[in-house]
Amino acid sequence: MNSHPVADIPYPQLYARRGTAIRGSAIDQSLSLLERVERDVIAFAMGCPDNEAFPLESLRRLSRAIMAEEGPQVLNYGSTEGDAELRRFLAARVTARGARVTPEQVLITTGGMQGLDLVFKLFLNPGDRVVVEQPTYTNAIATIANYEGTFLEIPVDADGMRVDQLADRLAAGAGDVKLIYVVPTFQNPAGVTLSLERRVALLELARRHRLIIVEDDPYAELRFEGKELPSLLALDGGAGTVLSVNTFAKIFSPGVRVGWVIAPARVVEKMVAARQSMDTCTNQVGQRLISRFCAGGELERHVLRLREEYRSRRDRMLADLSAAFGDVPGVQWTRPAGGFFIWMTLPAGTDTERLFRLGLEEGVAFIPGAAFAAGDGKALAHCLRLNFTYPPADRITEGVWRLRRAYGRLLAGD
Amino acid sequence: MNSHPVADIPYPQLYARRGTAIRGSAIDQSLSLLERVERDVIAFAMGCPDNEAFPLESLRRLSRAIMAEEGPQVLNYGSTEGDAELRRFLAARVTARGARVTPEQVLITTGGMQGLDLVFKLFLNPGDRVVVEQPTYTNAIATIANYEGTFLEIPVDADGMRVDQLADRLAAGAGDVKLIYVVPTFQNPAGVTLSLERRVALLELARRHRLIIVEDDPYAELRFEGKELPSLLALDGGAGTVLSVNTFAKIFSPGVRVGWVIAPARVVEKMVAARQSMDTCTNQVGQRLISRFCAGGELERHVLRLREEYRSRRDRMLADLSAAFGDVPGVQWTRPAGGFFIWMTLPAGTDTERLFRLGLEEGVAFIPGAAFAAGDGKALAHCLRLNFTYPPADRITEGVWRLRRAYGRLLAGD
Repeated sequence: MNSHPVADIPYPQLYARRGTAIRGSAIDQSLSLLERVERDVIAFAMGCPDNEAFPLESLRRLSRAIMAEEGPQVLNYGSTEGDAELRRFLAARVTARGARVTPEQVLITTGGMQGLDLVFKLFLNPGDRVVVEQPTYTNAIATIANYEGTFLEIPVDADGMRVDQLADRLAAGAGDVKLIYVVPTFQNPAGVTLSLERRVALLELARRHRLIIVEDDPYAELRFEGKELPSLLALDGGAGTVLSVNTFAKIFSPGVRVGWVIAPARVVEKMVAARQSMDTCTNQVGQRLISRFCAGGELERHVLRLREEYRSRRDRMLADLSAAFGDVPGVQWTRPAGGFFIWMTLPAGTDTERLFRLGLEEGVAFIPGAAFAAGDGKALAHCLRLNFTYPPADRITEGVWRLRRAYGRLLAGD
Repeated sequence: MNSHPVADIPYPQLYARRGTAIRGSAIDQSLSLLERVERDVIAFAMGCPDNEAFPLESLRRLSRAIMAEEGPQVLNYGSTEGDAELRRFLAARVTARGARVTPEQVLITTGGMQGLDLVFKLFLNPGDRVVVEQPTYTNAIATIANYEGTFLEIPVDADGMRVDQLADRLAAGAGDVKLIYVVPTFQNPAGVTLSLERRVALLELARRHRLIIVEDDPYAELRFEGKELPSLLALDGGAGTVLSVNTFAKIFSPGVRVGWVIAPARVVEKMVAARQSMDTCTNQVGQRLISRFCAGGELERHVLRLREEYRSRRDRMLADLSAAFGDVPGVQWTRPAGGFFIWMTLPAGTDTERLFRLGLEEGVAFIPGAAFAAGDGKALAHCLRLNFTYPPADRITEGVWRLRRAYGRLLAGD
């Protein structure tokens, strides 16, 4: 006896074309395997901030003040554009970093993910092509696929997207390309950063071909060393070539679900209209928490603390990788100057899906490279992503050695 | 000199077809007029809860406890399905009201609006037809239009949707109808409730034609009198004909942006996959606040208090309408047994858009009827929606008399 008979409605046949295309995140599929493992697993898999780094004292104080001083306003509907104070803060902050942005150009979103959903919803007709990096952010791929967009994958190297290859492809006639999606700084998953020279070249290329650049930049603040680079938004000088998507998830908290988009004011207006039939507005408690945290200058101090903490973890992981894999032929990894991730490349032919399963047995998790491919993922099947911000700092060394043992077993044909 | 030149990108020409269709909520357009008015305006326009009714003391206590006891978990990413405790609570609560629902069938959403967005995103191909009430909820119309769905409008009377007329239209061959969208209880905007007889008939009709019913039921708990009716979900007995969309906005707080969908487990899985590229997960502070509020039995007590408060406001407004409009020929209004709204019908030919402007001059706001039409709105142009939950209770009488003065001016050709 089935307690929930589904008698009449043939749901799978009724999904829309876009509904059929919807696929879960490949990362979540890995994570759900992870949940089913009995033993302790050191998680290099997630893209989460450190659980120990949240500014809990401040947040307790601020949430008490918000409930006491502005309870009714926070609990009722808020504006679709977002908290006015937070929009002003963000416009001023981005302007101080070289872009020229007014509060009307800022839309508060329900996390950075919704910013991407909004952009692709507004601009993608089925079949429209989007330039993406290879590898790139998994959920961005899924969103583009959900709106039946298609992909033009451009490889990255140590200086980010190969803009020269993109120029060649566009010159050769690459079909209905409409958007360029790029994570220019401390890229997810590769950890690499688009050089200044390539930023300028990418912007020129977009202008020449009248393409919109979608700049997804959640890690840029978490720089450990070297000189800050101007964002594509800043380089564009207000010409409207760039839609900037960002989030407080990595520099403050993912759980509050607050991000923002910067776009020409008329595009923001269109996005506001779309939001009204998506989720109406972003949760207000989260917006007010962040707004107060920023207003007091606490965000800047918090970012400095995160940089210190994450730099030392990156150094730890790089040292451990050298110790564990330094003498293994054909194994390489990136040396990110900031952000959350190291990208590891194993010898061609290595099956990192299989390595993932062996890793779970050894008690370590990562994300296999194919999850970051828009296409079939074969070109990335020998790569993997390691996160160094979420696992406890004192577990990184043990985790890397577990990975080394798993790789040893893979080589041994286990 | 324009400080934000938009030099290169012809944005309006680049919007996708669905992007072109995106229109702001007609209600928000009215509200933005309202914001520009200098004088004090008594607002019967919003669909907001009473600002005085939020359980602030409890929320202060609970938010302090959450930050103290589960800060890091609440601040990091949560699961896409939603808070496990809240899903169990909702499944048990709905089951106690006659539906058979497991936690796996519950998806926590970013407000009820996202539940609608998810359903229409998953099921609507361009041109697919959706049955809607005439009048119906503005933002649902917008969402369907955004996914290029089309409409079959069925009038409502005092017992809700004219299911007999729907039967006739379906029998005559009404095109590619796929979904029936209905707000069965204390409907927004009409305040009417679908009778038990019609609920049974609607369900039978849906099953016969293999249509999915989308039951949007945010007001059902706010019953002031009469016997509770089973939801369509409960009547369906777990057969999977009904997707139920709901929210805590009206019974707890809109600002926390927490709602839920109940659907067959495999549809929930599909929605989870879609969420990962929409907003990843619902904000955790809001989910934990509600979960703790529910766990302590506080939700049930709070709903009882809201019923009392809103009943007395409805009684106030009905009495005021009788006093102000009782002797005016051709003016009628509904007598809702619960919920947020009264629907007023003025003599045929009355222009309620014009009345809206006169109302603002007199210092009262409502929403003109055309905002609730899927089509051109002509059939509803002489109607309007009044909300009695948001304006201060002691301002309702004055507001109704302002409306009466505005109507007098309209009749006088002002």
